[in-house]
Amino acid sequence: MDNIVQPIALITSPFTDKFSIPRQPGLAPSVISTVSFVGDFDHAASIEGIQQYSHLWLIFEFNQHRSHQWRERVRPPRLGGNKQLGVFATRSPFRPNNLGMSVVKLVDVVVKPQVKLVVSGADLLDQTPIVDIKPYVPYVDAIPEASSAFAGDEPNQLEVCFSATAEAFIDELTSNAAKSEHYQNLRQVIIEVLRQDPRPAYHASKQPERHYVSQLYDLELNWYVTGQCLTITEIRQQKDF
Amino acid sequence: MDNIVQPIALITSPFTDKFSIPRQPGLAPSVISTVSFVGDFDHAASIEGIQQYSHLWLIFEFNQHRSHQWRERVRPPRLGGNKQLGVFATRSPFRPNNLGMSVVKLVDVVVKPQVKLVVSGADLLDQTPIVDIKPYVPYVDAIPEASSAFAGDEPNQLEVCFSATAEAFIDELTSNAAKSEHYQNLRQVIIEVLRQDPRPAYHASKQPERHYVSQLYDLELNWYVTGQCLTITEIRQQKDF
Repeated sequence: MDNIVQPIALITSPFTDKFSIPRQPGLAPSVISTVSFVGDFDHAASIEGIQQYSHLWLIFEFNQHRSHQWRERVRPPRLGGNKQLGVFATRSPFRPNNLGMSVVKLVDVVVKPQVKLVVSGADLLDQTPIVDIKPYVPYVDAIPEASSAFAGDEPNQLEVCFSATAEAFIDELTSNAAKSEHYQNLRQVIIEVLRQDPRPAYHASKQPERHYVSQLYDLELNWYVTGQCLTITEIRQQKDF
Repeated sequence: MDNIVQPIALITSPFTDKFSIPRQPGLAPSVISTVSFVGDFDHAASIEGIQQYSHLWLIFEFNQHRSHQWRERVRPPRLGGNKQLGVFATRSPFRPNNLGMSVVKLVDVVVKPQVKLVVSGADLLDQTPIVDIKPYVPYVDAIPEASSAFAGDEPNQLEVCFSATAEAFIDELTSNAAKSEHYQNLRQVIIEVLRQDPRPAYHASKQPERHYVSQLYDLELNWYVTGQCLTITEIRQQKDF
Protein backbone atom coordinates (compact mmCIF):
# COMPACT_ATOMS: atom_id res chain seq x y z
CA MET A 1 0.00 0.00 0.00
CA ASP A 2 2.98 2.35 0.37
CA ASN A 3 3.38 5.03 -2.27
CA ILE A 4 6.78 6.41 -3.22
CA VAL A 5 6.52 10.16 -3.65
CA GLN A 6 9.21 11.98 -5.60
CA PRO A 7 9.84 15.72 -6.01
CA ILE A 8 8.45 17.29 -9.19
CA ALA A 9 10.05 20.66 -8.41
CA LEU A 10 12.18 22.55 -5.88
CA ILE A 11 11.31 25.92 -4.42
CA THR A 12 13.77 28.79 -4.08
CA SER A 13 12.68 31.10 -1.27
CA PRO A 14 14.25 33.78 0.96
CA PHE A 15 13.77 31.45 3.96
CA THR A 16 17.22 29.92 4.33
CA ASP A 17 16.54 29.00 7.96
CA LYS A 18 13.44 27.62 9.72
CA PHE A 19 13.42 30.29 12.44
CA SER A 20 11.26 33.27 11.32
CA ILE A 21 9.31 31.46 8.58
CA PRO A 22 5.70 32.67 8.85
CA ARG A 23 3.59 29.94 10.44
CA GLN A 24 1.05 29.93 7.63
CA PRO A 25 1.10 30.96 3.96
CA GLY A 26 -0.20 34.39 2.97
CA LEU A 27 1.09 36.14 6.10
CA ALA A 28 4.05 37.55 4.15
CA PRO A 29 2.47 38.36 0.76
CA SER A 30 5.52 40.26 -0.58
CA VAL A 31 7.74 37.19 -0.32
CA ILE A 32 8.53 35.96 -3.83
CA SER A 33 9.51 32.30 -4.32
CA THR A 34 10.29 30.36 -7.47
CA VAL A 35 9.13 26.80 -8.12
CA SER A 36 11.54 25.17 -10.62
CA PHE A 37 10.50 21.86 -12.18
CA VAL A 38 13.11 19.12 -12.11
CA GLY A 39 14.10 16.16 -14.29
CA ASP A 40 11.24 14.44 -16.14
CA PHE A 41 8.79 17.05 -14.86
CA ASP A 42 10.52 20.00 -16.55
CA HIS A 43 8.09 20.18 -19.50
CA ALA A 44 5.95 23.18 -20.40
CA ALA A 45 3.08 20.89 -21.47
CA SER A 46 2.33 19.86 -17.89
CA ILE A 47 1.53 23.44 -16.80
CA GLU A 48 -0.42 24.47 -19.93
CA GLY A 49 -3.31 26.74 -18.92
CA ILE A 50 -2.05 27.28 -15.35
CA GLN A 51 -1.90 31.07 -15.83
CA GLN A 52 -5.73 31.08 -15.86
CA TYR A 53 -5.65 30.61 -12.07
CA SER A 54 -4.83 33.33 -9.57
CA HIS A 55 -3.82 30.91 -6.79
CA LEU A 56 -2.23 27.46 -6.57
CA TRP A 57 -1.82 24.77 -3.94
CA LEU A 58 1.71 23.54 -3.35
CA ILE A 59 1.93 20.07 -1.80
CA PHE A 60 5.41 19.68 -0.36
CA GLU A 61 7.65 17.65 1.90
CA PHE A 62 8.72 18.92 5.29
CA ASN A 63 12.10 17.46 4.36
CA GLN A 64 14.03 18.92 7.28
CA HIS A 65 11.93 16.71 9.52
CA ARG A 66 12.30 13.45 7.64
CA SER A 67 14.60 11.86 10.18
CA HIS A 68 12.46 12.93 13.12
CA GLN A 69 9.80 10.74 14.63
CA TRP A 70 6.35 12.22 14.32
CA ARG A 71 4.53 12.90 17.56
CA GLU A 72 0.93 12.05 18.43
CA ARG A 73 0.57 15.28 20.38
CA VAL A 74 2.22 18.58 19.49
CA ARG A 75 2.40 22.02 21.13
CA PRO A 76 1.31 24.57 18.51
CA PRO A 77 3.30 27.82 18.87
CA ARG A 78 0.07 29.81 18.38
CA LEU A 79 -1.22 28.39 21.66
CA GLY A 80 1.80 29.61 23.60
CA GLY A 81 3.57 26.26 23.45
CA ASN A 82 1.80 25.06 26.60
CA LYS A 83 -1.31 23.37 25.28
CA GLN A 84 -1.05 20.01 23.54
CA LEU A 85 -3.18 18.98 20.58
CA GLY A 86 -3.35 15.84 18.46
CA VAL A 87 -1.07 16.17 15.44
CA PHE A 88 -4.04 15.86 13.03
CA ALA A 89 -5.72 18.81 14.78
CA THR A 90 -2.74 20.99 13.78
CA ARG A 91 -0.71 21.96 10.72
CA SER A 92 2.50 21.03 12.57
CA PRO A 93 5.40 19.81 10.38
CA PHE A 94 6.03 16.93 12.81
CA ARG A 95 3.46 14.63 11.21
CA PRO A 96 3.21 11.20 9.61
CA ASN A 97 4.25 11.23 5.93
CA ASN A 98 5.84 14.73 6.20
CA LEU A 99 3.40 16.35 3.78
CA GLY A 100 2.54 20.05 3.88
CA MET A 101 0.17 22.14 1.78
CA SER A 102 0.16 25.89 1.20
CA VAL A 103 -1.86 28.15 -1.02
CA VAL A 104 0.21 30.72 -2.94
CA LYS A 105 -0.51 33.44 -5.47
CA LEU A 106 0.70 32.81 -9.03
CA VAL A 107 2.79 35.79 -10.16
CA ASP A 108 4.50 34.62 -13.34
CA VAL A 109 5.05 31.57 -15.54
CA VAL A 110 8.43 30.97 -17.20
CA VAL A 111 8.96 28.12 -19.68
CA LYS A 112 12.52 28.67 -20.96
CA PRO A 113 15.20 27.53 -20.34
CA GLN A 114 13.55 25.75 -17.39
CA VAL A 115 9.87 25.59 -16.46
CA LYS A 116 9.31 27.82 -13.43
CA LEU A 117 6.38 29.27 -11.54
CA VAL A 118 6.98 32.53 -9.70
CA VAL A 119 4.67 32.69 -6.67
CA SER A 120 4.07 35.02 -3.73
CA GLY A 121 3.09 34.41 -0.12
CA ALA A 122 4.73 30.99 0.28
CA ASP A 123 5.86 29.92 3.76
CA LEU A 124 8.33 27.29 2.53
CA LEU A 125 11.95 26.80 3.46
CA ASP A 126 14.42 27.36 0.60
CA GLN A 127 14.96 24.13 -1.42
CA THR A 128 11.80 22.43 -0.14
CA PRO A 129 10.79 19.59 -2.50
CA ILE A 130 7.37 20.12 -4.13
CA VAL A 131 5.48 16.88 -4.82
CA ASP A 132 2.30 18.28 -6.43
CA ILE A 133 0.79 21.53 -7.71
CA LYS A 134 -2.97 21.94 -8.05
CA PRO A 135 -5.10 24.92 -9.08
CA TYR A 136 -7.03 26.66 -6.28
CA VAL A 137 -10.69 26.24 -7.20
CA PRO A 138 -12.67 28.75 -5.12
CA TYR A 139 -16.08 27.08 -5.40
CA VAL A 140 -14.76 23.97 -3.65
CA ASP A 141 -11.69 25.20 -1.70
CA ALA A 142 -12.97 28.49 -0.24
CA ILE A 143 -15.17 27.95 2.82
CA PRO A 144 -15.09 31.32 4.61
CA GLU A 145 -17.78 30.14 7.05
CA ALA A 146 -15.62 27.23 8.29
CA SER A 147 -14.90 27.54 11.98
CA SER A 148 -11.71 26.81 13.82
CA ALA A 149 -11.47 27.43 17.52
CA PHE A 150 -7.70 27.51 17.82
CA ALA A 151 -6.24 28.99 14.68
CA GLY A 152 -9.18 30.98 13.35
CA ASP A 153 -7.96 34.43 14.19
CA GLU A 154 -5.10 36.08 12.44
CA PRO A 155 -2.16 36.33 14.80
CA ASN A 156 -1.27 39.55 16.56
CA GLN A 157 1.26 41.61 14.59
CA LEU A 158 4.14 43.69 15.90
CA GLU A 159 5.24 47.15 14.76
CA VAL A 160 8.61 46.78 12.94
CA CYS A 161 11.23 49.57 13.22
CA PHE A 162 14.66 49.84 11.55
CA SER A 163 17.75 51.37 13.16
CA ALA A 164 19.60 53.96 11.03
CA THR A 165 22.32 51.34 10.37
CA ALA A 166 19.80 48.75 9.20
CA GLU A 167 18.01 51.31 7.03
CA ALA A 168 21.31 52.36 5.42
CA PHE A 169 22.22 48.74 4.72
CA ILE A 170 18.94 48.15 2.86
CA ASP A 171 19.32 51.39 0.88
CA GLU A 172 22.79 50.40 -0.25
CA LEU A 173 21.75 46.87 -1.19
CA THR A 174 18.67 47.91 -3.15
CA SER A 175 20.46 50.73 -5.00
CA ASN A 176 22.33 48.06 -6.99
CA ALA A 177 20.10 46.83 -9.84
CA ALA A 178 21.27 43.19 -9.83
CA LYS A 179 21.09 42.92 -6.05
CA SER A 180 17.73 44.66 -6.01
CA GLU A 181 16.34 41.98 -8.33
CA HIS A 182 17.70 39.23 -6.11
CA TYR A 183 16.36 40.73 -2.87
CA GLN A 184 12.91 41.58 -4.23
CA ASN A 185 10.81 43.95 -2.04
CA LEU A 186 13.45 43.50 0.66
CA ARG A 187 12.27 46.13 3.14
CA GLN A 188 8.63 45.04 2.91
CA VAL A 189 9.58 41.35 3.10
CA ILE A 190 11.55 41.99 6.31
CA ILE A 191 8.57 43.82 7.83
CA GLU A 192 6.08 41.09 6.88
CA VAL A 193 8.30 38.30 8.18
CA LEU A 194 9.30 39.89 11.49
CA ARG A 195 5.92 41.44 12.37
CA GLN A 196 4.69 37.82 12.90
CA ASP A 197 6.82 37.75 16.07
CA PRO A 198 9.03 34.73 15.40
CA ARG A 199 9.97 34.39 19.11
CA PRO A 200 9.11 31.12 20.81
CA ALA A 201 5.98 31.81 22.87
CA TYR A 202 7.70 31.12 26.19
CA HIS A 203 10.45 33.66 25.38
CA ALA A 204 7.89 36.35 24.62
CA SER A 205 6.58 36.28 28.16
CA LYS A 206 9.70 35.34 30.10
CA GLN A 207 12.62 36.94 28.28
CA PRO A 208 11.72 40.47 27.19
CA GLU A 209 14.39 42.38 25.24
CA ARG A 210 16.39 39.26 24.46
CA HIS A 211 18.28 39.65 21.16
CA TYR A 212 17.56 37.35 18.21
CA VAL A 213 19.05 36.66 14.77
CA SER A 214 16.83 35.79 11.80
CA GLN A 215 18.13 34.69 8.43
CA LEU A 216 16.65 35.82 5.09
CA TYR A 217 18.54 34.97 1.88
CA ASP A 218 22.19 35.34 2.96
CA LEU A 219 21.34 38.16 5.36
CA GLU A 220 21.43 38.06 9.14
CA LEU A 221 18.83 40.30 10.78
CA ASN A 222 19.53 41.26 14.40
CA TRP A 223 16.49 42.35 16.40
CA TYR A 224 14.75 42.56 19.77
CA VAL A 225 11.23 43.26 20.97
CA THR A 226 9.96 45.74 23.55
CA GLY A 227 6.22 45.55 24.10
CA GLN A 228 4.53 45.69 20.67
CA CYS A 229 7.63 47.06 18.92
CA LEU A 230 10.28 45.00 17.14
CA THR A 231 13.51 46.89 16.41
CA ILE A 232 16.04 45.74 13.82
CA THR A 233 19.42 46.84 15.12
CA GLU A 234 21.69 45.56 12.36
CA ILE A 235 21.67 43.61 9.10
CA ARG A 236 24.77 41.70 7.99
CA GLN A 237 25.58 39.83 4.81
CA GLN A 238 27.05 36.39 5.44
CA LYS A 239 28.81 36.06 2.10
CA ASP A 240 29.40 38.07 -1.07
CA PHE A 241 26.57 38.00 -3.54
CA MET B 1 14.97 12.50 -2.05
CA ASP B 2 12.06 10.08 -2.41
CA ASN B 3 9.58 9.91 0.46
CA ILE B 4 7.66 6.74 1.25
CA VAL B 5 4.08 7.65 2.08
CA GLN B 6 1.95 5.16 3.98
CA PRO B 7 -1.79 5.18 4.72
CA ILE B 8 -2.79 6.49 8.15
CA ALA B 9 -6.47 5.63 7.59
CA LEU B 10 -8.93 4.16 5.09
CA ILE B 11 -12.19 5.77 4.06
CA THR B 12 -15.50 3.92 3.82
CA SER B 13 -17.80 5.71 1.37
CA PRO B 14 -20.92 4.90 -0.69
CA PHE B 15 -18.80 5.24 -3.86
CA THR B 16 -18.00 1.63 -4.68
CA ASP B 17 -17.28 2.50 -8.31
CA LYS B 18 -15.50 5.45 -9.94
CA PHE B 19 -18.34 6.25 -12.36
CA SER B 20 -20.73 8.79 -10.76
CA ILE B 21 -18.35 10.08 -8.06
CA PRO B 22 -18.85 13.87 -7.90
CA ARG B 23 -15.92 15.59 -9.57
CA GLN B 24 -15.17 17.78 -6.57
CA PRO B 25 -15.86 17.55 -2.83
CA GLY B 26 -18.89 19.33 -1.39
CA LEU B 27 -21.13 18.72 -4.42
CA ALA B 28 -22.91 15.89 -2.59
CA PRO B 29 -23.11 17.23 0.98
CA SER B 30 -25.43 14.46 2.25
CA VAL B 31 -22.88 11.75 1.48
CA ILE B 32 -21.53 10.39 4.77
CA SER B 33 -18.10 8.71 4.78
CA THR B 34 -16.08 7.27 7.64
CA VAL B 35 -12.31 7.68 8.02
CA SER B 36 -10.97 4.78 10.12
CA PHE B 37 -7.40 5.03 11.42
CA VAL B 38 -5.23 1.98 10.83
CA GLY B 39 -2.34 0.24 12.61
CA ASP B 40 0.05 2.53 14.50
CA PHE B 41 -2.13 5.53 13.72
CA ASP B 42 -5.20 4.21 15.55
CA HIS B 43 -4.66 6.31 18.70
CA ALA B 44 -7.12 8.86 20.09
CA ALA B 45 -4.23 11.13 21.16
CA SER B 46 -3.39 12.04 17.56
CA ILE B 47 -6.82 13.60 16.92
CA GLU B 48 -7.19 15.37 20.29
CA GLY B 49 -8.94 18.71 19.77
CA ILE B 50 -10.01 17.97 16.18
CA GLN B 51 -13.71 18.46 17.04
CA GLN B 52 -12.97 22.20 17.40
CA TYR B 53 -12.85 22.44 13.60
CA SER B 54 -15.88 22.38 11.32
CA HIS B 55 -13.94 21.25 8.24
CA LEU B 56 -10.90 19.08 7.52
CA TRP B 57 -8.57 18.45 4.61
CA LEU B 58 -8.10 14.84 3.59
CA ILE B 59 -4.89 14.14 1.67
CA PHE B 60 -5.29 10.82 -0.10
CA GLU B 61 -3.93 8.49 -2.74
CA PHE B 62 -5.68 8.02 -6.06
CA ASN B 63 -4.81 4.35 -5.57
CA GLN B 64 -6.87 3.04 -8.48
CA HIS B 65 -4.50 4.91 -10.75
CA ARG B 66 -1.23 3.75 -9.25
CA SER B 67 -0.33 1.47 -12.13
CA HIS B 68 -1.19 4.07 -14.76
CA GLN B 69 1.34 6.42 -16.23
CA TRP B 70 0.58 10.04 -15.47
CA ARG B 71 -0.02 12.27 -18.47
CA GLU B 72 1.43 15.73 -19.12
CA ARG B 73 -1.84 16.87 -20.68
CA VAL B 74 -5.30 15.77 -19.61
CA ARG B 75 -8.85 16.40 -20.87
CA PRO B 76 -10.90 17.66 -17.92
CA PRO B 77 -14.50 16.35 -18.11
CA ARG B 78 -15.79 19.83 -17.15
CA LEU B 79 -14.42 21.16 -20.43
CA GLY B 80 -16.36 18.64 -22.49
CA GLY B 81 -13.42 16.27 -22.83
CA ASN B 82 -12.18 18.09 -25.93
CA LYS B 83 -9.81 20.69 -24.54
CA GLN B 84 -6.42 19.64 -23.18
CA LEU B 85 -4.75 21.23 -20.17
CA GLY B 86 -1.47 20.61 -18.40
CA VAL B 87 -1.97 18.14 -15.56
CA PHE B 88 -0.87 20.74 -12.94
CA ALA B 89 -3.59 23.11 -14.23
CA THR B 90 -6.21 20.48 -13.27
CA ARG B 91 -7.29 18.36 -10.30
CA SER B 92 -7.15 15.25 -12.51
CA PRO B 93 -6.33 11.96 -10.72
CA PHE B 94 -3.84 11.05 -13.47
CA ARG B 95 -0.96 12.98 -11.91
CA PRO B 96 2.57 12.43 -10.66
CA ASN B 97 2.65 11.05 -7.10
CA ASN B 98 -1.10 10.16 -7.14
CA LEU B 99 -2.01 12.60 -4.36
CA GLY B 100 -5.47 14.13 -4.01
CA MET B 101 -6.87 16.62 -1.51
CA SER B 102 -10.49 17.25 -0.55
CA VAL B 103 -12.13 19.41 2.06
CA VAL B 104 -14.87 17.66 4.05
CA LYS B 105 -17.18 18.61 6.90
CA LEU B 106 -16.49 16.95 10.26
CA VAL B 107 -19.72 15.33 11.51
CA ASP B 108 -18.62 13.11 14.40
CA VAL B 109 -15.56 11.78 16.21
CA VAL B 110 -15.48 8.19 17.50
CA VAL B 111 -12.58 6.90 19.62
CA LYS B 112 -13.69 3.38 20.64
CA PRO B 113 -13.15 0.62 19.69
CA GLN B 114 -11.34 2.22 16.72
CA VAL B 115 -10.56 5.88 16.10
CA LYS B 116 -12.89 7.15 13.37
CA LEU B 117 -13.91 10.48 11.89
CA VAL B 118 -17.37 10.68 10.35
CA VAL B 119 -17.34 13.28 7.57
CA SER B 120 -19.75 14.59 4.95
CA GLY B 121 -19.28 15.81 1.39
CA ALA B 122 -16.29 13.62 0.50
CA ASP B 123 -15.75 12.68 -3.16
CA LEU B 124 -13.55 9.66 -2.42
CA LEU B 125 -13.85 6.12 -3.70
CA ASP B 126 -14.63 3.52 -1.01
CA GLN B 127 -11.40 2.19 0.60
CA THR B 128 -9.24 5.10 -0.57
CA PRO B 129 -6.06 5.32 1.56
CA ILE B 130 -5.79 8.59 3.51
CA VAL B 131 -2.20 9.78 4.03
CA ASP B 132 -2.82 12.97 6.04
CA ILE B 133 -5.59 14.91 7.77
CA LYS B 134 -5.24 18.63 8.48
CA PRO B 135 -7.65 21.15 9.99
CA TYR B 136 -9.21 23.64 7.55
CA VAL B 137 -8.02 27.06 8.74
CA PRO B 138 -10.27 29.67 7.11
CA TYR B 139 -7.96 32.66 7.51
CA VAL B 140 -5.32 30.98 5.33
CA ASP B 141 -7.27 28.41 3.27
CA ALA B 142 -10.36 30.42 2.28
CA ILE B 143 -9.67 32.79 -0.63
CA PRO B 144 -13.13 33.51 -2.06
CA GLU B 145 -11.68 36.18 -4.38
CA ALA B 146 -9.35 33.66 -6.08
CA SER B 147 -10.11 33.38 -9.77
CA SER B 148 -10.16 30.32 -11.94
CA ALA B 149 -11.14 30.60 -15.57
CA PHE B 150 -11.99 26.97 -16.19
CA ALA B 151 -13.44 25.47 -13.05
CA GLY B 152 -14.70 28.56 -11.27
CA ASP B 153 -18.37 28.10 -11.82
CA GLU B 154 -20.40 25.41 -10.16
CA PRO B 155 -21.42 22.84 -12.74
CA ASN B 156 -24.90 22.74 -14.22
CA GLN B 157 -27.24 20.43 -12.29
CA LEU B 158 -29.95 18.14 -13.63
CA GLU B 159 -33.45 17.59 -12.23
CA VAL B 160 -33.58 14.03 -10.75
CA CYS B 161 -36.83 12.02 -10.95
CA PHE B 162 -37.63 8.55 -9.57
CA SER B 163 -39.86 5.98 -11.28
CA ALA B 164 -42.58 4.42 -9.08
CA THR B 165 -40.50 1.21 -8.92
CA ALA B 166 -37.37 3.08 -7.81
CA GLU B 167 -39.35 5.07 -5.24
CA ALA B 168 -40.88 1.88 -3.82
CA PHE B 169 -37.45 0.23 -3.57
CA ILE B 170 -36.09 3.15 -1.51
CA ASP B 171 -39.16 3.16 0.75
CA GLU B 172 -38.77 -0.53 1.46
CA LEU B 173 -35.03 -0.26 2.13
CA THR B 174 -35.29 2.74 4.45
CA SER B 175 -38.25 1.32 6.42
CA ASN B 176 -35.82 -1.21 7.94
CA ALA B 177 -33.94 0.45 10.83
CA ALA B 178 -30.62 -1.38 10.36
CA LYS B 179 -30.62 -0.85 6.60
CA SER B 180 -31.68 2.76 7.02
CA GLU B 181 -28.60 3.38 9.17
CA HIS B 182 -26.34 1.77 6.58
CA TYR B 183 -27.83 3.70 3.63
CA GLN B 184 -27.87 7.09 5.37
CA ASN B 185 -29.96 9.81 3.63
CA LEU B 186 -30.26 7.43 0.67
CA ARG B 187 -32.82 9.32 -1.41
CA GLN B 188 -31.03 12.65 -0.98
CA VAL B 189 -27.61 11.07 -1.63
CA ILE B 190 -28.89 9.59 -4.91
CA ILE B 191 -30.23 13.00 -5.98
CA GLU B 192 -27.01 14.83 -5.10
CA VAL B 193 -24.82 12.28 -6.87
CA LEU B 194 -26.85 11.94 -10.07
CA ARG B 195 -27.78 15.62 -10.49
CA GLN B 196 -24.06 16.20 -11.28
CA ASP B 197 -24.67 14.45 -14.62
CA PRO B 198 -22.10 11.65 -14.47
CA ARG B 199 -22.26 11.05 -18.25
CA PRO B 200 -19.03 11.47 -20.20
CA ALA B 201 -19.27 14.87 -21.91
CA TYR B 202 -19.21 13.40 -25.41
CA HIS B 203 -22.16 11.11 -24.59
CA ALA B 204 -24.24 14.02 -23.34
CA SER B 205 -24.22 15.66 -26.74
CA LYS B 206 -24.08 12.64 -29.03
CA GLN B 207 -26.05 9.89 -27.30
CA PRO B 208 -29.24 11.30 -25.79
CA GLU B 209 -31.46 8.85 -23.89
CA ARG B 210 -28.72 6.24 -23.60
CA HIS B 211 -29.19 4.13 -20.45
CA TYR B 212 -26.54 4.09 -17.70
CA VAL B 213 -25.87 2.15 -14.50
CA SER B 214 -24.33 3.85 -11.45
CA GLN B 215 -23.22 2.04 -8.33
CA LEU B 216 -23.75 3.34 -4.78
CA TYR B 217 -23.00 1.00 -1.85
CA ASP B 218 -24.18 -2.39 -3.19
CA LEU B 219 -26.97 -0.78 -5.21
CA GLU B 220 -27.22 -0.50 -8.98
CA LEU B 221 -29.03 2.62 -10.15
CA ASN B 222 -30.42 2.50 -13.70
CA TRP B 223 -31.07 5.87 -15.31
CA TYR B 224 -31.22 7.96 -18.48
CA VAL B 225 -31.33 11.66 -19.30
CA THR B 226 -33.73 13.63 -21.49
CA GLY B 227 -32.88 17.31 -21.72
CA GLN B 228 -32.38 18.62 -18.17
CA CYS B 229 -34.18 15.67 -16.56
CA LEU B 230 -32.51 12.52 -15.23
CA THR B 231 -34.93 9.63 -14.60
CA ILE B 232 -34.07 6.66 -12.36
CA THR B 233 -35.92 3.70 -13.83
CA GLU B 234 -34.89 0.97 -11.43
CA ILE B 235 -32.69 0.29 -8.39
CA ARG B 236 -31.33 -3.21 -7.75
CA GLN B 237 -29.40 -4.67 -4.85
CA GLN B 238 -26.37 -6.67 -5.95
CA LYS B 239 -26.14 -8.82 -2.84
CA ASP B 240 -27.97 -9.36 0.43
CA PHE B 241 -27.17 -6.85 3.13
